[in-house]
Amino acid sequence: MPTELQDAFDAYERALATDDIEALDDAFAPGEETLRGDSNGLLVGHDAISAFRSARGGITPRVLDRVESRRLADDCWLIVAMSRYEGGGTGLQTQVWQLADGRWRITAAHVTGRTPSFDKAVWRTVGDPLYQGAFDGPLLGLRVAVKDVFAVRGYRIGAGNPTWLRDAARERQHAPAVLDLLKAGASVRGLARTDELAYSIAGANPHYGTPANGAVVGALPGGSSSGPATAVATGQADVGLASDTAGSIRVPASYQGLWGLRTTHGLVPRQGMVPLAPSFDTVGWLTRDGATLDAVVTWCLEDDAPPLPSRRLVPAEVLQLVEPATREAFDAWSGGTVEEVEVGPLDEWFEAFRVVQAAEAWRAHGAWVTAHPDAVGPGVRERFAIASEVTASDEASARTEVERLAGVIRALVDDAVLVLPTTPGPAPARTVSAAELDQVRAATLRMTALAGIGGLPALTFPALTFPSALGPAPVGVCLVGPRGSDLSLVRHALGGLT
Amino acid sequence: MPTELQDAFDAYERALATDDIEALDDAFAPGEETLRGDSNGLLVGHDAISAFRSARGGITPRVLDRVESRRLADDCWLIVAMSRYEGGGTGLQTQVWQLADGRWRITAAHVTGRTPSFDKAVWRTVGDPLYQGAFDGPLLGLRVAVKDVFAVRGYRIGAGNPTWLRDAARERQHAPAVLDLLKAGASVRGLARTDELAYSIAGANPHYGTPANGAVVGALPGGSSSGPATAVATGQADVGLASDTAGSIRVPASYQGLWGLRTTHGLVPRQGMVPLAPSFDTVGWLTRDGATLDAVVTWCLEDDAPPLPSRRLVPAEVLQLVEPATREAFDAWSGGTVEEVEVGPLDEWFEAFRVVQAAEAWRAHGAWVTAHPDAVGPGVRERFAIASEVTASDEASARTEVERLAGVIRALVDDAVLVLPTTPGPAPARTVSAAELDQVRAATLRMTALAGIGGLPALTFPALTFPSALGPAPVGVCLVGPRGSDLSLVRHALGGLT
Repeated sequence: MPTELQDAFDAYERALATDDIEALDDAFAPGEETLRGDSNGLLVGHDAISAFRSARGGITPRVLDRVESRRLADDCWLIVAMSRYEGGGTGLQTQVWQLADGRWRITAAHVTGRTPSFDKAVWRTVGDPLYQGAFDGPLLGLRVAVKDVFAVRGYRIGAGNPTWLRDAARERQHAPAVLDLLKAGASVRGLARTDELAYSIAGANPHYGTPANGAVVGALPGGSSSGPATAVATGQADVGLASDTAGSIRVPASYQGLWGLRTTHGLVPRQGMVPLAPSFDTVGWLTRDGATLDAVVTWCLEDDAPPLPSRRLVPAEVLQLVEPATREAFDAWSGGTVEEVEVGPLDEWFEAFRVVQAAEAWRAHGAWVTAHPDAVGPGVRERFAIASEVTASDEASARTEVERLAGVIRALVDDAVLVLPTTPGPAPARTVSAAELDQVRAATLRMTALAGIGGLPALTFPALTFPSALGPAPVGVCLVGPRGSDLSLVRHALGGLT
Repeated sequence: MPTELQDAFDAYERALATDDIEALDDAFAPGEETLRGDSNGLLVGHDAISAFRSARGGITPRVLDRVESRRLADDCWLIVAMSRYEGGGTGLQTQVWQLADGRWRITAAHVTGRTPSFDKAVWRTVGDPLYQGAFDGPLLGLRVAVKDVFAVRGYRIGAGNPTWLRDAARERQHAPAVLDLLKAGASVRGLARTDELAYSIAGANPHYGTPANGAVVGALPGGSSSGPATAVATGQADVGLASDTAGSIRVPASYQGLWGLRTTHGLVPRQGMVPLAPSFDTVGWLTRDGATLDAVVTWCLEDDAPPLPSRRLVPAEVLQLVEPATREAFDAWSGGTVEEVEVGPLDEWFEAFRVVQAAEAWRAHGAWVTAHPDAVGPGVRERFAIASEVTASDEASARTEVERLAGVIRALVDDAVLVLPTTPGPAPARTVSAAELDQVRAATLRMTALAGIGGLPALTFPALTFPSALGPAPVGVCLVGPRGSDLSLVRHALGGLT
């Protein structure tokens, strides 16, 4: 190949080895046409590629094993290189280099890194299966990603934290929510990651990494049920068994284009599940399609789905809170079939919810957090610090307020189904700042608190899609119904909301 | 893009969907320059690509989600397409299309399929870790792939067979060979695949698939310790804990460029290990480098490595048996420092070994095989059928012969180290016929039986590399020393055989 190209290729390899971001950015052609793809998907445009690279950190040390070059035109060459990593494994990179303005630059790249034994950001342990279910039953063949807050016989619970895991004992029996799925023929594929102690909705875990978003390249997966959601979205499992206190099922489902059900509070037994805030903790499931969720809910809850109230209401305060693109997509989707209703300032809902949640989270885990002050990572650590300051009187007032608001929301769903965007917008980019993430979190919890406070079932399903900076991004629509209407909500969404 | 190109691309997609091999082969440009790469490596030349494709079977159904095309020259376009699989997950394909003789054809392709939760051909179960070792020790941080014939507490043993696995009970304690590694700080990364009941050296398993060869694209991994070997070669684990009866460590190590030690017979306790033929069964390890093997052997066996005999002998019959390229590479490597010695017809060694092995394998598993006549796949099933016919008198004569030959080989290594190619040649292609494979197997076992019969330690390390049809291929050199010289062999090879 031309000497200048060889030099450019060599310089690029050196920049990779030293993670010289500036040089790497410069090696890729500027503009909106440049491509870079890997197992997580395709990035289009120099800016998207650059943003990805700044968040990646360096690559694993490796040497080039074999380099094939092909002239495609005078000003265009293909280079395909196989690399061998320190510590085993091979990688492959395909690059189209083009000459423009006297410089050879990459206009398209396809990268395959070495294959890890499994994705540790998604799973703690996987097996084929990890736990075999019954050899027959209505859920036969479904592979379950169990959020690492549930007991699976013979395994420890990790709860998203290595210190917790280290001190955990092997569970002697399955959580009932696990056993129920096994009895129906589903098998456990693996134990999937969670945000630490499920006390976050971002889907980032400082110890084990952040799972990929299965729908949007470069976006956060949503949490705390990040592992089950990504496992299901990427086809590594069919059902995510998860928990939802303040949105931990609904948020990742919305971000990754999944179906997700937070069940009526108290309906599914929570034995064998690490608690966060028992007044709001629920068990639920994530699936890629409504039919699978229907099968799971039919088996685990009931096979009777009484008709839902016929009115459809959307809280006006929610529509004011969501991003403009979300509101637009929601309005277009609902087509005027949903009445607006006022539920009062969402700040009040959130504050009442937050204080009771914090008080209970501290009651559940304060002693452990105190005994292991450095064990918990940023974000969750600060939330526990704030939780530790909640006084008995704060809690009592907040609890009174929660009860009052529960009355409000339950009265609303007495003769209506709430219909609202599940999240304020699509999944934030992985490169989002902590401040922006806090903002997203605050807005999201103001929306998810409605069902939480009411102890109501909440189904999210992938109804909205619109362009985002990271490509087409899904946002869920959430149906909140009366207590016990879990299956009816699923059937209703499956039937096209007719 | 040009209409004809669009048509060619669409036709290629249709051919993929229907696994129309002829159309797929025709869509790739003929000749030696055509490239196709994926996570297993790079294939160069139309023939290599075609051979791969014929062995692959079809692809998982999927739809194209996004197609980006770029004109590189009038006669050359780039197409990058993201696909979404039925059942979740995305894939990416990058193709260079060139116009020649009026036809658009692919001259280079890079393919990324959806990410599976883990490679079920390599592992049965994996974890981070699957079993935590001591928090300190000389093997701290090493990830062990345990061949699925050893007991790991709390897990069942699968022995490469789903019927075996189904009926297995959870193990109550670790096999000593497992426990020993855990005590030194190594952790179990996972339970790795084996050929059925370890009764094969090919590395193909009809139930779980054939692991990739970590060194040679499109080649068999070698077995029976196929899973541990591939896991180590691809960097998914650092140590393979395995067994070697007739070459089950040495063969995959030779095929994948690894270090592998078959220990002195009886030196490492075999409790908690599924037997095949106890007179020959040994425990051993696979690693990517000699230093790691040294650390493992030093911990597990002894830290004393007395000097080896100074003479170096290679059996003349082995050199006559190996492929010409192997002999050439071996001669070049040894540079005349190794004397030839005659050990007698290898057919006799093999036959004595084979009959005793078969008799013992039947004694170990005949009742099970009889009770589950359809459980075992081809190859292994036939071997058990033959084993069932070995009479007591056959066995007695063979055993006498084994004793005589053991005397011969032990006398040889009394004042010499045997040095020989580990396998007749590099790993056969995955597309090899059953007849060819039988031939390779027969030749291999004639070579590996020497150490087996003598109960001698045998170290293989990656000393030879030469071109093969599948690219540069490693072949191991095997050192066979006196009983108990295990560590000395490792140190000797590490020291450059000086």
